[in-house]
Amino acid sequence: MPDKKAVVLLSGGLDSATALYIARDKGYQCHCLVFDYGQRHRREIEAAKIIAKRTGSTCQVIKISLPWGGSSLLDRKIKLAKKRFPAQDKIPATYVPGRNLIFLSFALSCAEALGAGAVFSGPHVYDYSGYPDCRPEFYRALKKVISCGTKAGAQHKQIKIMTPLVYKTKAEIIRLGGKLGVPFRLTWSCYRGGKAPCGRCDSCYYRAKGFREAGIKDR
Amino acid sequence: MPDKKAVVLLSGGLDSATALYIARDKGYQCHCLVFDYGQRHRREIEAAKIIAKRTGSTCQVIKISLPWGGSSLLDRKIKLAKKRFPAQDKIPATYVPGRNLIFLSFALSCAEALGAGAVFSGPHVYDYSGYPDCRPEFYRALKKVISCGTKAGAQHKQIKIMTPLVYKTKAEIIRLGGKLGVPFRLTWSCYRGGKAPCGRCDSCYYRAKGFREAGIKDR
Repeated sequence: MPDKKAVVLLSGGLDSATALYIARDKGYQCHCLVFDYGQRHRREIEAAKIIAKRTGSTCQVIKISLPWGGSSLLDRKIKLAKKRFPAQDKIPATYVPGRNLIFLSFALSCAEALGAGAVFSGPHVYDYSGYPDCRPEFYRALKKVISCGTKAGAQHKQIKIMTPLVYKTKAEIIRLGGKLGVPFRLTWSCYRGGKAPCGRCDSCYYRAKGFREAGIKDR
Repeated sequence: MPDKKAVVLLSGGLDSATALYIARDKGYQCHCLVFDYGQRHRREIEAAKIIAKRTGSTCQVIKISLPWGGSSLLDRKIKLAKKRFPAQDKIPATYVPGRNLIFLSFALSCAEALGAGAVFSGPHVYDYSGYPDCRPEFYRALKKVISCGTKAGAQHKQIKIMTPLVYKTKAEIIRLGGKLGVPFRLTWSCYRGGKAPCGRCDSCYYRAKGFREAGIKDR
């Protein structure tokens, strides 16, 4: 058994799927965590499970509730915006307070318990949606938290936070994912979670733009 | 309505109850989060609800699962140690990987959604049980994470992490709690969660020692 284990935060979207394929490419045996947090687009959970299975990785769905809402992805009373212009620098209503920190906390807990040396996740700063918890500064600050606040850190066995896509554009991610064999057609991006992607939300917008720029057809 | 709102991490033990009473004493309107994470000592959840109610605070129980275990508080196959000698500097088996980071992540999410300016919690470095995530360094590192990774931080509205007990001994906490009117008899410390405290686990040991040193009777 390889002792190179990683916990992968898998959402069912194409970024985290690419992060999973990168982790496997680096020789990690992967355990995927998928979060059911009351998101509108619950279809992504099924997508994530299928993608994990396809790579032969183990997978756990973690159900959490964020009963205070505060995001249009959780609260159907907050309107889901149609696509924004990419230059807009306001934090969008789809931002879920503290979401990435919560996901990473669970991933760290899991990594400590399983003895995994790395946590992979797929945030990126370009073409992203203005989420503060996708910024590299956030991930850098978290490293310090890990070294201070975990048993692994206290015993100088560092758990690495791997964000291999953080400085890549969506088009670069798609090109890289294509090379690694990521099954894009199985991934789900649309925030609305209907039968077919809406083509109008931020997530659909950036996906379409990314494929267009990568010169790859999104099936 | 006061706009000084705080989220309080309440466990049902005497430390977090004292933190709640401190927050109220500072004029905060408190919203308590209580975690049901599969702990042996589920009695503490009921204790926490009663204490929150008593202070007129709102309270939500957040159910989470940590299916990877890794702690004697979660996994009944791992033996719960009898009391250790206080000088022992090993991290005990009751340490739950990433627990405090998970709790704090939820608290931050809640604070952002409610517009609260502070999160109170009751860790302390003396007489504690050697948990890395009770150390002040951990809380200091977390501040940076908050300023980088939250909407509030990005908008320069800082959410303060308040750990008023961090440098206090158990005896000092008990004396302070006594002054503030903390109903100690309603708090629950024992890890075993039986009908009556076992008197032998770490938590019972430090509680008894604290009351003895404070010269206060634990009813």
